Amino acid sequence: MFVLPLRDIQENMEIFYAKDIAGGTLKLDEEESRHCVRVLRHRTGDEISVTDGNGTLFRCRITADSAKETEAEILDAIHDWGGHPYCLEMAVCPTKNADRLEWFAEKACETGIDSIVPVIGEHSERTAVKPQRIEKILLSAAKQSLKGKIPMLKETMPVKAYIESMKDDDGCMKLIACCFEDESHPRISIMEALKKMQPDSGRISVLIGPEGDFSAEEAALAVRCGFIPVHLGPSRLRTETAALTAVFAVYSRFLL
Amino acid sequence: MFVLPLRDIQENMEIFYAKDIAGGTLKLDEEESRHCVRVLRHRTGDEISVTDGNGTLFRCRITADSAKETEAEILDAIHDWGGHPYCLEMAVCPTKNADRLEWFAEKACETGIDSIVPVIGEHSERTAVKPQRIEKILLSAAKQSLKGKIPMLKETMPVKAYIESMKDDDGCMKLIACCFEDESHPRISIMEALKKMQPDSGRISVLIGPEGDFSAEEAALAVRCGFIPVHLGPSRLRTETAALTAVFAVYSRFLL
Repeated sequence: MFVLPLRDIQENMEIFYAKDIAGGTLKLDEEESRHCVRVLRHRTGDEISVTDGNGTLFRCRITADSAKETEAEILDAIHDWGGHPYCLEMAVCPTKNADRLEWFAEKACETGIDSIVPVIGEHSERTAVKPQRIEKILLSAAKQSLKGKIPMLKETMPVKAYIESMKDDDGCMKLIACCFEDESHPRISIMEALKKMQPDSGRISVLIGPEGDFSAEEAALAVRCGFIPVHLGPSRLRTETAALTAVFAVYSRFLL
Repeated sequence: MFVLPLRDIQENMEIFYAKDIAGGTLKLDEEESRHCVRVLRHRTGDEISVTDGNGTLFRCRITADSAKETEAEILDAIHDWGGHPYCLEMAVCPTKNADRLEWFAEKACETGIDSIVPVIGEHSERTAVKPQRIEKILLSAAKQSLKGKIPMLKETMPVKAYIESMKDDDGCMKLIACCFEDESHPRISIMEALKKMQPDSGRISVLIGPEGDFSAEEAALAVRCGFIPVHLGPSRLRTETAALTAVFAVYSRFLL
């Protein structure tokens, strides 16, 4: 896993995103082309950096500048660019106020995550998200924070379905952050849980409940399916702050 | 230091804030009175919880309900209510976009800080903040996250003046988060620095620079005045995310 040393980051480095990559050349879509040619005034012959959103950064030379479709030839490629030495999935109940989840997506991407799954709990007041808005925020945050891999926004699903889907995934450390605890399953701090991870396994999934917390049934199912009940310390945190605290805990466990 | 155990928090607990407290009674100002009487429909005889913003929570009984000025008698008081076992001052350069600093204030208050000092660096593009807006956000976040003490917003000052003002404060762990390092003062991770703290001393000050980072002169002055240069890991974080990462690091050092 290649982790970008901070001192190598060029403060004003600008990266573009392209889906259309084949045979040593790539094409920027209309939005990226406009930004490249109109805003940053790049011209044929200029060198630019382009990510495929999957972790690879291409150094390229523009062969045709156009605000509609800019083309470039690939000079070289760096894999796992701006990556992190863990794989973190955040399964988060949408917040009542949509802005707050979108804010979480931006900050989580800057810090370092791999995927977000919006999950709907039995106590959720909000049961839908705006996937296009969140995807746009993730793309922009990945470019801004120089990450080659854009975190994936997965399909929205019920909390119980998510728990069931993870049941047999023994290689993943599964955590559920709940505000209550039952006597038979005392919670430990998220840091304590993360310190128990094997150093060679970096796959983690964290479940964060809605404003009204998980139902007792959801929490019990999670424990039966191998989720470890964790707490995030004594502060009463909003859903999105709780989710970000978990992201920071993982970042800090591996990178601070 | 009294730290509120999570299980003792009443999920829907509502707290009010009062400045006017004397001789066993207190008065809510117009905004708090309106919320108490109009929105939550409290009446004479009801019990309410009120903080003085300095860490004390009063259980009170309303003696005169009025949307202009509600009065209550104090039944008992809990000191250091919702407190944390450290004292954290964040000296942060205002972000270009004012919303981002305001967002930081909310999240930092929820997590646990004691004061914010807006500082203006040589590379700062923005040199002013809106103190009333930030104070309003801090009050509302403290009430929402059940903290008895409202973080203090101090006067805006230049980075160098802040550094000089901290020079002789040897009991405080002083950290400067900079993106560059000079060979003679290598940076350590903020977690490493925090682990070196004496367990009995919990005073910490963290300096966070503007989008263009500190000037070399500011960083050198900080080191001469006892600040330890730290980094926040390999991710390229925005100013407000960097500041929140530092708050989470302290929270996690003491409470996770």
